[in-house]
Amino acid sequence: MAKTTAAKTNPGRFFEDYKVGDVIAHAVPRTVSGGERALYHALYPARHALYSSDEFARGCGLPAAPLDDLAAFHIVFGKTVPDISLNAVANLGYAEGRWLLPVYEGDTLRSESEVIGVKQNSNGKSGVVYVRTRGLNQNDDVVMEYVRWVMVRKKDLDAPAPETVIPELSKVIPASDLKIPGGLDFSDYDFTLAGEAHRWGDYEVGETIDHVDGVTVEEAEHMLATRLWQNTAKVHFDATARPDGTRLIYGGHVISMARALSFNGLANAQMIVGLNGGAHANPCLSGTTIRAWSEVLDKADTEAPGVGAIRLRLVATSGGAPFALKGEDGKYLPEVLLDLDYWALMPK
Amino acid sequence: MAKTTAAKTNPGRFFEDYKVGDVIAHAVPRTVSGGERALYHALYPARHALYSSDEFARGCGLPAAPLDDLAAFHIVFGKTVPDISLNAVANLGYAEGRWLLPVYEGDTLRSESEVIGVKQNSNGKSGVVYVRTRGLNQNDDVVMEYVRWVMVRKKDLDAPAPETVIPELSKVIPASDLKIPGGLDFSDYDFTLAGEAHRWGDYEVGETIDHVDGVTVEEAEHMLATRLWQNTAKVHFDATARPDGTRLIYGGHVISMARALSFNGLANAQMIVGLNGGAHANPCLSGTTIRAWSEVLDKADTEAPGVGAIRLRLVATSGGAPFALKGEDGKYLPEVLLDLDYWALMPK
Amino acid sequence: MAKTTAAKTNPGRFFEDYKVGDVIAHAVPRTVSGGERALYHALYPARHALYSSDEFARGCGLPAAPLDDLAAFHIVFGKTVPDISLNAVANLGYAEGRWLLPVYEGDTLRSESEVIGVKQNSNGKSGVVYVRTRGLNQNDDVVMEYVRWVMVRKKDLDAPAPETVIPELSKVIPASDLKIPGGLDFSDYDFTLAGEAHRWGDYEVGETIDHVDGVTVEEAEHMLATRLWQNTAKVHFDATARPDGTRLIYGGHVISMARALSFNGLANAQMIVGLNGGAHANPCLSGTTIRAWSEVLDKADTEAPGVGAIRLRLVATSGGAPFALKGEDGKYLPEVLLDLDYWALMPK
Repeated sequence: MAKTTAAKTNPGRFFEDYKVGDVIAHAVPRTVSGGERALYHALYPARHALYSSDEFARGCGLPAAPLDDLAAFHIVFGKTVPDISLNAVANLGYAEGRWLLPVYEGDTLRSESEVIGVKQNSNGKSGVVYVRTRGLNQNDDVVMEYVRWVMVRKKDLDAPAPETVIPELSKVIPASDLKIPGGLDFSDYDFTLAGEAHRWGDYEVGETIDHVDGVTVEEAEHMLATRLWQNTAKVHFDATARPDGTRLIYGGHVISMARALSFNGLANAQMIVGLNGGAHANPCLSGTTIRAWSEVLDKADTEAPGVGAIRLRLVATSGGAPFALKGEDGKYLPEVLLDLDYWALMPK
Repeated sequence: MAKTTAAKTNPGRFFEDYKVGDVIAHAVPRTVSGGERALYHALYPARHALYSSDEFARGCGLPAAPLDDLAAFHIVFGKTVPDISLNAVANLGYAEGRWLLPVYEGDTLRSESEVIGVKQNSNGKSGVVYVRTRGLNQNDDVVMEYVRWVMVRKKDLDAPAPETVIPELSKVIPASDLKIPGGLDFSDYDFTLAGEAHRWGDYEVGETIDHVDGVTVEEAEHMLATRLWQNTAKVHFDATARPDGTRLIYGGHVISMARALSFNGLANAQMIVGLNGGAHANPCLSGTTIRAWSEVLDKADTEAPGVGAIRLRLVATSGGAPFALKGEDGKYLPEVLLDLDYWALMPK
Repeated sequence: MAKTTAAKTNPGRFFEDYKVGDVIAHAVPRTVSGGERALYHALYPARHALYSSDEFARGCGLPAAPLDDLAAFHIVFGKTVPDISLNAVANLGYAEGRWLLPVYEGDTLRSESEVIGVKQNSNGKSGVVYVRTRGLNQNDDVVMEYVRWVMVRKKDLDAPAPETVIPELSKVIPASDLKIPGGLDFSDYDFTLAGEAHRWGDYEVGETIDHVDGVTVEEAEHMLATRLWQNTAKVHFDATARPDGTRLIYGGHVISMARALSFNGLANAQMIVGLNGGAHANPCLSGTTIRAWSEVLDKADTEAPGVGAIRLRLVATSGGAPFALKGEDGKYLPEVLLDLDYWALMPK
């Protein structure tokens, strides 16, 4: 029985299974509908008007309200888990994330990942794998892409160490490389309906914003969300998978919660178009009250009418004082859950 | 940092910020889809056939099943929270609520509120604000309206007391003022599919109905619901916002739960068209098992074929004996959570 | 008041109320949308591609992705609860379940049950009722049917015992009686997108598969699911309904959870077309970590291009060793929650 079992279920890939240049087509395409949008609003205090109202989106030159950019990210990401991170020890980082096409109701998404780097650890028991993941729609258009690197266990400790390949990754996506959705026009942007009067010009580089509100998370909520994205990593669902009986909350759940909380102070940071980097600084468990603060890292103009780009640091915490990030030792403070660096589009 | 923070996040309005005659346009318009309908059925034991089945609704002269009347109310209400009740000490009452147009999938809702009354409390620290809120669709048609009054804190205790204005509000909406949805026709009403045989004529004024069933509520459920309506009041989400670490359940969650429970005995009270008044008698917390009972307060005929109007008291409790409402002292009994007075439409 | 109350609410039927030949039309028709599909993915780790992607379904000859077969079953089943199992002591079994038409977004489902057998228990206090339930769509086409028998209490212990009628039920639906959805064609089946390479020919009768993963269930989740199917059985919702204050999880929730978990090893067992039998071996309560294993019971060819039928035993457990089902005494082991016998369709 053990044999037939092993033969049928997916053991996941181990470090020695990844070869630079391999392209892995991930399973389970997904068609999105108004259901995903409604659930996103139930799971997170999401209020950005462009994603809440078809009318508002049309007023900005889009055909309808797209699926929240982070929901698209979660769907694309979720499909990669069985092939990339099932045996991952740690999710080490993100880079060069770009949203290239809005996702609309009726679109069907699938994902593929190209292995762009491998480096065995000195202990010989694991290694770091770098992949560039692309999300594609039913027309094979790439709707988003990002680089992610994870530490993966070796199964066969005798497997030879592969030639080390570490991809050159830009620390920050140049504003000129950001893809502005076709037709996007903030010339007639309705600040009243959007919820805040602050324009792109009202934000200064270095400015910090405490988003004030907090949301206490429950087991049922993060599991509903993580399943919705068809993310199968067992640590999120199986209370027996960790010695202390807790379920580790999917890092993307923290990202979406923090982004939604950032509405209060950044209501006009409407579309996420770039992910420069991100670190899940500390694990998040059920019962945590998630808070968020932001820092304006940079600003740039775009060619789209009325549209400016703003680079933001989004930090999620489990408490503590806002704007505190790292300690004297340069390590993240224990209450810091997430440190995300992204580009958003804002009316000028 | 405190300065820039204060400059960007919404502190909410305080008593002295409200002027009679002001019209406040609330933010974050919302397009509804089948997702909101499915979630409403998952969050509440909602079974009224007119809202569950497009076919049944067509049999009643409507183009499709509308969004549940209370879901429309919650969406309209939720948008008002950041402007009306963020600094509210208490939600004191409702009056003159009328549903004027059914909401269908694809409709986009927004809200606006007119300040119709203000009265500073004798303590000089807070006051009562009366607003008439309207929910509008993408065609600027008013889909519903209601009056609500809340007690709001003053920020500047030295701000002069405004001239007291207390609006004249009808205790009960005259049946002749109720808006019957165009085309509504109960002549061929299917009592079997609706779930009960009791017609409008079978209910007597003074009659009481114990709805028998009970539902125990969980933190995850009321937060999902409250977020779905984009209600941002922190007491519903932040376990650290109250000294005892509990989250206060949104009063509207109790309204929808009780209304859904009332199906058992009032399955044919299909559409809510009027809200005469309502009191959240006692707070509801997670773990409470909500029960409900109703009393027939009045009945009236309508001009729509086969359609009668019935005025109902809907009481939600956390237990105790049905039909008990107030004590000797005239105060609500501690187990009473909600006392709602509404008009519904029923087949004759 | 007691009188009027009794007169309006539904007391449910008792054993003596069922007569062989009676056809009961169940209430509350339901129109399904993308909302139900999204919620199904949030509630269960459902990943079968045919139900997740419209594009994948079209590649298999269907017009779009149908509603998950088990979601259709839950909707049809839920409507029967107020008429069949409100006073049931136990849900004894299922047989002759067949899915006859896929359910698509926009379809409206209703249910009816025919009483096909009754047998009073020797204690004179209860009896077994057999019903054949049919789910119908807006065109009055039967989308599915199944036989279920339950033990129901008598209200009037003096009511005479009815003539015993026990229907002849096939232990297993012959493969030739399975209804293959019109147009279904697995000739161009995409195994990569489906998630596994194993074809119908790769499975041997007697083979067992441990689905490895586990999901810990929460009160909020099973109540959301059970409400979504408009199943009103109070034991699932009312913490005061059972002496120990627990809520009994709807057996169908365990079926869907186990089926979804079985993706890992049976990703290509795409469509469920037959339910041969099923037993809810032990009750499931919140906090349980549900695991699943399967056994291949039989295989059969079909006339549809590239489509084979596979008969599977699906067992859900709360732990213990996989493949253990019954003890020396022939009784189910205490950790066994579900023992289901079904036919699915798989690419050859």
